[in-house]
Amino acid sequence: IAKEVAKLLEMKAQLGEDEGKHKFVLKTPKGTRDYGPKQMAIRERVFNAIISCFKRHGAEVIDTPVFELKETLTGKYGEDSKLIYDLKDQGGELLSLRYDLTVPFARYLAMNKITNIKRYHIAKVYRRDNPAMTRGRYREFYQCDFDIAGQFDPMIPDAECLKIVHEILSDLQLGDFVIKVNDRRILDGMFAVCGVPDSKFRTICSSVDKLDKVPWEEVRSEMVGEKGLSPEAADRIGEYVQLHGGLELIERLLQDPKLSQNKLAKEGLGDMKLLFEYLTLFGITGKISFDLSLARGLDYYTGVIFEAVLLHQENEHVEEPLSVGSVAGGGRYDGLVGMFDPKGRKVPCVGVSIGIERIFSILEQRLEASEEKIRTTETQVLVASAQKKLLEERLKLISELWDAGIKAEMLYKKNPKLLNQLQYCEDTGIPLVAIVGEQELKDGVVKLRIVATREEVNVRRESLVEEIRIRTSQC
Amino acid sequence: IAKEVAKLLEMKAQLGEDEGKHKFVLKTPKGTRDYGPKQMAIRERVFNAIISCFKRHGAEVIDTPVFELKETLTGKYGEDSKLIYDLKDQGGELLSLRYDLTVPFARYLAMNKITNIKRYHIAKVYRRDNPAMTRGRYREFYQCDFDIAGQFDPMIPDAECLKIVHEILSDLQLGDFVIKVNDRRILDGMFAVCGVPDSKFRTICSSVDKLDKVPWEEVRSEMVGEKGLSPEAADRIGEYVQLHGGLELIERLLQDPKLSQNKLAKEGLGDMKLLFEYLTLFGITGKISFDLSLARGLDYYTGVIFEAVLLHQENEHVEEPLSVGSVAGGGRYDGLVGMFDPKGRKVPCVGVSIGIERIFSILEQRLEASEEKIRTTETQVLVASAQKKLLEERLKLISELWDAGIKAEMLYKKNPKLLNQLQYCEDTGIPLVAIVGEQELKDGVVKLRIVATREEVNVRRESLVEEIRIRTSQC
Repeated sequence: IAKEVAKLLEMKAQLGEDEGKHKFVLKTPKGTRDYGPKQMAIRERVFNAIISCFKRHGAEVIDTPVFELKETLTGKYGEDSKLIYDLKDQGGELLSLRYDLTVPFARYLAMNKITNIKRYHIAKVYRRDNPAMTRGRYREFYQCDFDIAGQFDPMIPDAECLKIVHEILSDLQLGDFVIKVNDRRILDGMFAVCGVPDSKFRTICSSVDKLDKVPWEEVRSEMVGEKGLSPEAADRIGEYVQLHGGLELIERLLQDPKLSQNKLAKEGLGDMKLLFEYLTLFGITGKISFDLSLARGLDYYTGVIFEAVLLHQENEHVEEPLSVGSVAGGGRYDGLVGMFDPKGRKVPCVGVSIGIERIFSILEQRLEASEEKIRTTETQVLVASAQKKLLEERLKLISELWDAGIKAEMLYKKNPKLLNQLQYCEDTGIPLVAIVGEQELKDGVVKLRIVATREEVNVRRESLVEEIRIRTSQC
Repeated sequence: IAKEVAKLLEMKAQLGEDEGKHKFVLKTPKGTRDYGPKQMAIRERVFNAIISCFKRHGAEVIDTPVFELKETLTGKYGEDSKLIYDLKDQGGELLSLRYDLTVPFARYLAMNKITNIKRYHIAKVYRRDNPAMTRGRYREFYQCDFDIAGQFDPMIPDAECLKIVHEILSDLQLGDFVIKVNDRRILDGMFAVCGVPDSKFRTICSSVDKLDKVPWEEVRSEMVGEKGLSPEAADRIGEYVQLHGGLELIERLLQDPKLSQNKLAKEGLGDMKLLFEYLTLFGITGKISFDLSLARGLDYYTGVIFEAVLLHQENEHVEEPLSVGSVAGGGRYDGLVGMFDPKGRKVPCVGVSIGIERIFSILEQRLEASEEKIRTTETQVLVASAQKKLLEERLKLISELWDAGIKAEMLYKKNPKLLNQLQYCEDTGIPLVAIVGEQELKDGVVKLRIVATREEVNVRRESLVEEIRIRTSQC
């Protein structure tokens, strides 16, 4: 403790010094970034695609606080818990920043005794992970979650979640993708028939989860070396986890002499078959792969799990290639709400989370490469003047336009040069200029200039709003 | 320190116990709330009004991380600094949750060497204040900020900020309001001529800031008792701070024998006069009050300051009346960006922050009182079946509709009763039901039911999408 205190005091002293010298480190915290206007324009496009899809599927929307009581998050994330950001104890409650949107959702359901809801939630979550920002891995990042809670007939909501991922990834045109699907019950049944002791299910599951990043040999040696699994059990797992396919693989495994004897695996495989039938009706099995190596890191999954990965890297000419990675994931978590209910009442849930930082990275790089110009404002008209001493007239006109709902700007100068005003339109993409001058004022007109064509027309002042609307309408 | 450690250990022990027993406190942290679907519908309406206005004025949008380096926030908030949420030191950088959006904006400008921008930013900020949630005072709350940065001719951007507040509060129809305006230079000049020592300017300013909540007598005794101001100086301040009015008050104070001798006050009054001239051109002086008691708590203001308050409480029949309070505020802060620049280069800024929690409270209470039903989804059609064994057909049809961009839902049951399906539409406001049945399938049609009129029409399957679009279009 003395050491801790000394460290703190040292830091305080450092801080104090910095203050005195007015020497600041000008940066955002590690693993975080600002979004400038251009990035925001891309972000809005992605959000719009995702929100449209969630609304198309009839979801309501909720929001929860950025932090939760620390104990709300405790015991939900397995080995990942060490990545949770805690707040300092400043008296009062112990708080942590949310690690995902699923646990706050389950807390919300239990707290409000909601047993039936379909909702989406788009918000930032926080993980003290090792950032790799060029590849879209941040410590502060957005999740876009869609979840269906309620007691329903099997696999219908689960199939809808996969349909949603398929719709969003198709809509965003990120290139080819595959959605890997598995089931925690199949994994657990597989662990059982391979001879993994019950107590090691979760930790072996975490090892399997690494298979998308490291080769099997490394995962195997973690299982045997670090986690004390017998080499024979590991090898048996190794045979299963290389399997992936479609309906025919499910049928084969349903006949597998060992797996078919295991109750959990049989249940999982039966549901997986049903899921594939529904996905066939949705016409999306072409991009779905039943993959026994898919494990998902989080503790709370109880049934179907899935993860979407982009298959080809987009900008092959970019020097540092984008790593192809997971852009969406989710699954069924039937026990999580019950962990919050005083009487343990369960609310079955299934949901999907779209991770948009990687998608941003791809779209950002693509945009830079394309040199497409994106507007960062929606301004329809610049109110300008050709002569001096017309500030008051510009203020009057712009005020009329704002009050009529027109998006209008002006330069904040008393006597701006016309050339500077026109240049501002070129730079920011404003399509029209409304020019006031002595003569126009006398005549009761405004000169409307179309920036693209340099055409100029005199418009009667009372028709100006309508004229601007017509000339800037998209339809 | 020993005491602190003991407290922590006790808390840890408690936490440990709770974990063991699976006894969770089911709540959100103090001063925070969840937003359910209905609250979110209100929130979206308010956001849309505010964002429309910001875009109408040509603003770009940015976003910054929820936390900043602790030192970024140090020395910016005066006496309010104690309300900042710090994160726990988990190794690495010391972080704090943002206290407002202004300091992160200034950090963003300095870091990216931006000297000219008009942007908005809507995000949550965090203050360890005493919450009064029924009155819309939270520890986690939204701010909607619009700021103009750059070297411009005096008072033009400042006037636009006030115009924006006027537009938004008018648009939201919250009842009558007034926007109080003052200037830090007038305040400082006033303090000087009243005999307040330079070193006490900021702390006396904080006392004056309390005048909207506590009577003058109390503020006076804080000045004299706690802050060691002479009773004579306090009494002189007391005379000034009861003044409020318009252009005529500005003219009078420009002639005030004491104030007119003070350089700062004279500058401030001159600019205030110019501001009122511009506001007259905007036609909004009717709701603007030049008020010498307005001080604003934050340290960083250097010129014009303002605050909008609602004048009449809305629901006069509500048992616990809403306290009438500030819903927007802002001002000029010409020195803040320079505090972050290694060479102290200044970027003049003026901005406004709309605090929407109070606005929410009012609109929420109004909605409850009105018993208006608001839809929380946009679903156009429910895909239903009248007979059993048609799940596959429903899945096929709904998939067609989704792919055509129609917002569609279905019940997640294999064989739902028609009555339950119709009831779901009544409950959630879905206007149409697309009913598949054996006969319809044979005939290549879908039965479309209009929920409001109970009318039913057979629509050819290939025309269904178009028919749904026509029947649910708003235009």
